[in-house]
Amino acid sequence: MSIRKLEKQDYNKGYLNLLENLTVVGKISKDEFDKTFDELNSDYHIYVIEKENKIVATGTLLVEKKFIHQCGKVGHIEDIVVHQHENGKGYGKMIVEYLRDLAKKEGCYKVILDCTAKVENFYQKCDFKSKGIQMAVYFD
Amino acid sequence: MSIRKLEKQDYNKGYLNLLENLTVVGKISKDEFDKTFDELNSDYHIYVIEKENKIVATGTLLVEKKFIHQCGKVGHIEDIVVHQHENGKGYGKMIVEYLRDLAKKEGCYKVILDCTAKVENFYQKCDFKSKGIQMAVYFD
Repeated sequence: MSIRKLEKQDYNKGYLNLLENLTVVGKISKDEFDKTFDELNSDYHIYVIEKENKIVATGTLLVEKKFIHQCGKVGHIEDIVVHQHENGKGYGKMIVEYLRDLAKKEGCYKVILDCTAKVENFYQKCDFKSKGIQMAVYFD
Repeated sequence: MSIRKLEKQDYNKGYLNLLENLTVVGKISKDEFDKTFDELNSDYHIYVIEKENKIVATGTLLVEKKFIHQCGKVGHIEDIVVHQHENGKGYGKMIVEYLRDLAKKEGCYKVILDCTAKVENFYQKCDFKSKGIQMAVYFD
């Protein structure tokens, strides 16, 4: 089982179905998928695990440029999801640790993520420590 | 007092000194500042408040593109800081509310930020609600 970058062909390998295990995705045509894919600049690193022609896990590292910390960079881990039929196989940990190490390689001085209290323990096993509170405003 | 976008000339108006009120900045030459400024793509919206030729408050909205939520966008509010001599004048609230409304205008389905428990009350006054936990790994 290896981790690789998201490709346009993953539209046909259940990538969007996988994301539905995380939250609402909606109907996205191949053209819309390709358009969004093309819009993602070099700050975005979307990785997947493929198994028997299906995408079973994914996660994103967004590398944010800053002025603080000597024009430093911060990695944001986003949208970690493992297919509901593939839980308990360590795919989530594989993805999170891959993206954590990628953040370091990309020169980030830290990597952060937001989660619920329910999965705090999982992220602690991936070396993350609780740091603060996430606040949000929803527009829809 | 009005809010405007960060400009390259703000290097000479104490912008980096202001950021030192938030965290370590380090020595950044004008060339390094300009290089980072040029690297910030259209996802980055850095705003400032100028008073008597000095930058007294700033904040950043990073607009993240996603596949979830119908190829949706999420706003990340980052690096909110008010100069220590200008506290209590409402500049922080002005900046946060401006960036919150900008996120909506940019088509984000939500806007999020991470903070400490100490300032949770401040962000609640800006309509933010506590949503989860921020986790981090530091590399330095």
